[in-house]
Amino acid sequence: MNGSVHGTDETSPSSAGGMSARVRVGIVGASGYSGEELVRLLLGHPRVELTAVTSRQYAGRTVAQVFPKFASHSGARTLRFSEPNVDLLATQAQVVFLALPHGVAAEFAVPLLQRGCQVIDLSADFRLRSPDVYREFYAHDHPAPDLLAGAVYGLVEVYRDTLRGAALVASPGCYPTSILLPSIPLLRQQLVKTSGVIANSLSGVSGAGRKAEIDYLFVECNESMRPYAVPKHRHLSEIEQELSAAAGAPVVIQFTPHLIPVSRGILTTLYFTPSQHVQGADQAAAFADTVAACYQAAYPDQPFVRLLQGNALPDTKNVVGTNVVEIAWRVDPRTGRLIVMSAVDNVVKGASGQAVQCFNVLSGFDETTGLL
Amino acid sequence: MNGSVHGTDETSPSSAGGMSARVRVGIVGASGYSGEELVRLLLGHPRVELTAVTSRQYAGRTVAQVFPKFASHSGARTLRFSEPNVDLLATQAQVVFLALPHGVAAEFAVPLLQRGCQVIDLSADFRLRSPDVYREFYAHDHPAPDLLAGAVYGLVEVYRDTLRGAALVASPGCYPTSILLPSIPLLRQQLVKTSGVIANSLSGVSGAGRKAEIDYLFVECNESMRPYAVPKHRHLSEIEQELSAAAGAPVVIQFTPHLIPVSRGILTTLYFTPSQHVQGADQAAAFADTVAACYQAAYPDQPFVRLLQGNALPDTKNVVGTNVVEIAWRVDPRTGRLIVMSAVDNVVKGASGQAVQCFNVLSGFDETTGLL
Amino acid sequence: MNGSVHGTDETSPSSAGGMSARVRVGIVGASGYSGEELVRLLLGHPRVELTAVTSRQYAGRTVAQVFPKFASHSGARTLRFSEPNVDLLATQAQVVFLALPHGVAAEFAVPLLQRGCQVIDLSADFRLRSPDVYREFYAHDHPAPDLLAGAVYGLVEVYRDTLRGAALVASPGCYPTSILLPSIPLLRQQLVKTSGVIANSLSGVSGAGRKAEIDYLFVECNESMRPYAVPKHRHLSEIEQELSAAAGAPVVIQFTPHLIPVSRGILTTLYFTPSQHVQGADQAAAFADTVAACYQAAYPDQPFVRLLQGNALPDTKNVVGTNVVEIAWRVDPRTGRLIVMSAVDNVVKGASGQAVQCFNVLSGFDETTGLL
Amino acid sequence: MNGSVHGTDETSPSSAGGMSARVRVGIVGASGYSGEELVRLLLGHPRVELTAVTSRQYAGRTVAQVFPKFASHSGARTLRFSEPNVDLLATQAQVVFLALPHGVAAEFAVPLLQRGCQVIDLSADFRLRSPDVYREFYAHDHPAPDLLAGAVYGLVEVYRDTLRGAALVASPGCYPTSILLPSIPLLRQQLVKTSGVIANSLSGVSGAGRKAEIDYLFVECNESMRPYAVPKHRHLSEIEQELSAAAGAPVVIQFTPHLIPVSRGILTTLYFTPSQHVQGADQAAAFADTVAACYQAAYPDQPFVRLLQGNALPDTKNVVGTNVVEIAWRVDPRTGRLIVMSAVDNVVKGASGQAVQCFNVLSGFDETTGLL
Repeated sequence: MNGSVHGTDETSPSSAGGMSARVRVGIVGASGYSGEELVRLLLGHPRVELTAVTSRQYAGRTVAQVFPKFASHSGARTLRFSEPNVDLLATQAQVVFLALPHGVAAEFAVPLLQRGCQVIDLSADFRLRSPDVYREFYAHDHPAPDLLAGAVYGLVEVYRDTLRGAALVASPGCYPTSILLPSIPLLRQQLVKTSGVIANSLSGVSGAGRKAEIDYLFVECNESMRPYAVPKHRHLSEIEQELSAAAGAPVVIQFTPHLIPVSRGILTTLYFTPSQHVQGADQAAAFADTVAACYQAAYPDQPFVRLLQGNALPDTKNVVGTNVVEIAWRVDPRTGRLIVMSAVDNVVKGASGQAVQCFNVLSGFDETTGLL
Repeated sequence: MNGSVHGTDETSPSSAGGMSARVRVGIVGASGYSGEELVRLLLGHPRVELTAVTSRQYAGRTVAQVFPKFASHSGARTLRFSEPNVDLLATQAQVVFLALPHGVAAEFAVPLLQRGCQVIDLSADFRLRSPDVYREFYAHDHPAPDLLAGAVYGLVEVYRDTLRGAALVASPGCYPTSILLPSIPLLRQQLVKTSGVIANSLSGVSGAGRKAEIDYLFVECNESMRPYAVPKHRHLSEIEQELSAAAGAPVVIQFTPHLIPVSRGILTTLYFTPSQHVQGADQAAAFADTVAACYQAAYPDQPFVRLLQGNALPDTKNVVGTNVVEIAWRVDPRTGRLIVMSAVDNVVKGASGQAVQCFNVLSGFDETTGLL
Repeated sequence: MNGSVHGTDETSPSSAGGMSARVRVGIVGASGYSGEELVRLLLGHPRVELTAVTSRQYAGRTVAQVFPKFASHSGARTLRFSEPNVDLLATQAQVVFLALPHGVAAEFAVPLLQRGCQVIDLSADFRLRSPDVYREFYAHDHPAPDLLAGAVYGLVEVYRDTLRGAALVASPGCYPTSILLPSIPLLRQQLVKTSGVIANSLSGVSGAGRKAEIDYLFVECNESMRPYAVPKHRHLSEIEQELSAAAGAPVVIQFTPHLIPVSRGILTTLYFTPSQHVQGADQAAAFADTVAACYQAAYPDQPFVRLLQGNALPDTKNVVGTNVVEIAWRVDPRTGRLIVMSAVDNVVKGASGQAVQCFNVLSGFDETTGLL
Repeated sequence: MNGSVHGTDETSPSSAGGMSARVRVGIVGASGYSGEELVRLLLGHPRVELTAVTSRQYAGRTVAQVFPKFASHSGARTLRFSEPNVDLLATQAQVVFLALPHGVAAEFAVPLLQRGCQVIDLSADFRLRSPDVYREFYAHDHPAPDLLAGAVYGLVEVYRDTLRGAALVASPGCYPTSILLPSIPLLRQQLVKTSGVIANSLSGVSGAGRKAEIDYLFVECNESMRPYAVPKHRHLSEIEQELSAAAGAPVVIQFTPHLIPVSRGILTTLYFTPSQHVQGADQAAAFADTVAACYQAAYPDQPFVRLLQGNALPDTKNVVGTNVVEIAWRVDPRTGRLIVMSAVDNVVKGASGQAVQCFNVLSGFDETTGLL
């Protein structure tokens, strides 16, 4: 970790001079799991000066006091949480990450953009292009519909070019990331039908956030496997928006999330019907090759997309703590169906890592800076 | 627990007299997880005298020495593991449970049947009616094809009548149990199409057996979620056999098992296409009612089938340690699809509990004896 | 499970007649982990008619709705949670279990005793004989000091005779149970010194109760091991009271609890200095034999005390779900010290199972009724 | 990660030229948990060129194939496991890490030292100065007793000066690290008595190694807490050797290890008797200050020693994945005893991280290089 921090305890002018190449960055709402992971990544980011972290709950305490595991980083010992204050933030930071609940994020995004900050929002507030869809899935009117058109959906592997220089980035949700990266190339290439898509997803408990609720107590989650939010989870809205954009036609999918007793990770198993009829072992093998070629063309040399070879299948333990998505696929000669499996860390590639990846693109840095 | 044991340390004639109503039972291969659970259930069974447990590995040791947690039962302190010996078993036991690997079970089943024992086999050896299908999925010739026609598939809720008095019972696999119980009534009633069925299953690690393999070490499974055996798991053979029988037509399904870091439990999420077209909220609600009626008709007063009401969804922690299958269903008005979710304990309803349930039917006892 | 329930949905007079041999029992505060376990045990208790379960939070709902895993028991489907009401309880139940926070339990115990109920309290309210010690450890005045002298500490293996016919039982804490059962015989026999005793205890997360607190979320506990409440945990008060009583002299011990990512179980490792000097392998072996003889004399044929033989050491997984305490001991020839290790299920032998054991003694039933 | 790799696929001469400042390093036995962690740390080490990793089991496969989670590092995709070959290793590497079982490590250390390599051994082979103690605890004669005198015990915070330029480093065991770092300053300053020291330690399952044994299966460890190797674990030999050296007098301690269901981490709770009599709150507070001053003097600005302040207590989840040891202490005014608690990651600070820290000192690099 070689990030830099401008702590409240003061840094010397000379060291400040050496930071000229760094971008001043703030985090609003740094007390949840995504916020904590942002702190970790940005403290260690060589092109970032982390100047502000806000949390009503922790205001006044140092990052090291709140998150002892970061205490080895000198910045964590000097930087203090503050109450969120838009005017102050706008002077402290060029780029602000929002790790807030949906609905609340927009309240910060609007004034920060007005004051000239770039905003990377990890909530759902700016992921949807349509305020109507937002209302349908989030049950209230969108707080800032005028901003929707200008926001860029931060799925870097898909929207990299649009992201450069964007003012407002909507960092994708965790489930959507695990579903969209393996699905978009197939739909763009029309290798699979737009109907009948099923996404069966398993999530670790950090996906529920750091909230004091009985349902997420250790004893309630340990030795438990359970579906939830069947059949209409909120993330469907952004998933179908992006799948439809890829297909050039409306895509409605079946999506079933499950809660699993791991701290981190999402494992998604996708079921597709190939556009062409596939029957028997030879056609299955040929179609598997077509899929492989499609992925390799879509993700050539992508540092964070790992296309598994041979007998390998995704395992969340191989991606936890990293910004990588693992993808594998099989064509079943008995059913003619394509099965695609993906694994991500819901807090990294599914949230904070992807947000930092967006930041790198936005800022013109190498996309992997601070993420390897 | 009030089972009885005829241990090697001798019991008094008078107590033996009081056991006249008990069935003498033996377990071959009692060292794995299914065998251990059989020991637990049969030690506590009020109509069973457990007279023999065999294990090459543990021969000579008492049940309490091998499984300290059963030591509170006096029978566990006197009954000793022995080397498996068919002649001796046939004198000791009227009913023999086989908890052995497939292929090995048949070696015991054949001579035990010849000697007049009833056999309840927990392996895959007698689940398939076709030796060809067996060869396709198990990669060797069936060791006793003549017995296949007479074996009864021990899914009690489906084959109860056939089970009474059966000589050879093939107790179903864990995944099949979690898939068949929710699927068979729908297919029998032709509420869903026979094509396009998808079963996405999650299993605890005990499903892999008590085998010293790196893949199942704590460190390899903890904080891991992974699919395996994609797309052709062996259990497909018995699943499709039984689904086809229910539908009266060939059924080929998509089945994806996943390994999850819990000790016990299977959570299966099934995707069906309704036979009739379902569109919109009203039709979805109506079809959900039809499904409910179908299940209630198929499983009236079934002690081990719990049809969930209201907002409840299955959770493996609510069935672990019990012989219950939990089933819930939702009809998605957006996709017109039926989603059915089930939860079982893979070692109880998915193996040993179901085998004891078979035993109860076989022996004319109340089906729940020793299982509540 | 063959308990009986008088549900709010009414049972027929004739069935009520068959219940003449059953004790009518109520549970106040049945929504936490101890309360839930009491429900499980009392539903299955052959001499109990569970007539009332109270919970402000769940009032109006059936036991089966709140705890789906008990739904196989018919009583769970008819019995409904009610608001706690002392007058009503006194008509419904002869014996009332209190599974409430300390301080609150006394508010129910006093009026219930006045109305003639027997009370088995699982809180700390009546465990201490001295209101001064209570104030020191619980930071408020004792709410009913007059009752302390008459309350019986419900450690059955130690106070069995006093328990018969007691009106008010203070069921011991989980840590105290794991410490007292292995320690009391040694101190009574003066085999170990009263000074220098150390108890290092590990607890599963259910010990923290079903409380919505961040510290006990899955993500905060999983992959975590941590001491807490060092050096003065509240349970020290009852531990030292009982150790002193056993020794006939004041005993002050060192006690360090730790939180471990398991749902259930307490593993305690105790360090004692033998009264006689022990040096070398021969003396160590001889002293180990003396300890063995002491335990065997203290716990002859105790159904819930398992003295481990040979190389066996306690493992919480061998006691979880049971009312058993496992005890093993070693004498170290290098240090001359005695190490004693114990394992219990904190919710069963450490709480609800022990309370039912008390109930059995109180009611003149076999001590193991409903607990094997 | 910006380490470099000289893979078998060849690198260009020009890039090799840029590596002049890097040390060529090999790892023998890179298939276990310590070896895997060494691979991770050395791939990411900016002053290391990882030139060889050996494993009989994995020979011929790339690091990325064996450990998919490292595949994002280009080096992992080119470097292949090879059969261990001392002559080849001596040409490939200047420094060789041995991650082998005890007894086997010496077979490689001897010839590698003869060929001029520096050796950092993670096994127990060179930790003890006395071949007699080795024989007592490891049950066979030491394979290379002549090397014992020259080996340096790699506890960097204690032996930093001796480590510079050492030819053979014996990297400490995991339990010893968690015990020695908090104990040595106290014994050196004679703040505590040398007798009566108790170390109660809890270890994650990776401490047992990646071995296919039933005892370490997920199902056997999950929901289990158990002591083992009581009262004489092998690590006592090096612990007592180093404590005695610190105290300048023989120290014999009580040490009880326990297996806990976490993948990683050691939590040790130490009990000491202060040299001076401590009684009551004032003396306890004063002695706690003395202990604090002792630790601050012993570990000023140590990057990997975190002395906890205020109410904080160690938690393994705050050190997992890092090379940090957390230490906290309390003085109990009731018993006059000092309790010290420590937490480390058994695979990092307890093994591979510490070995890399040794390597940094040995090579004259900043001690934190590649470890923050």
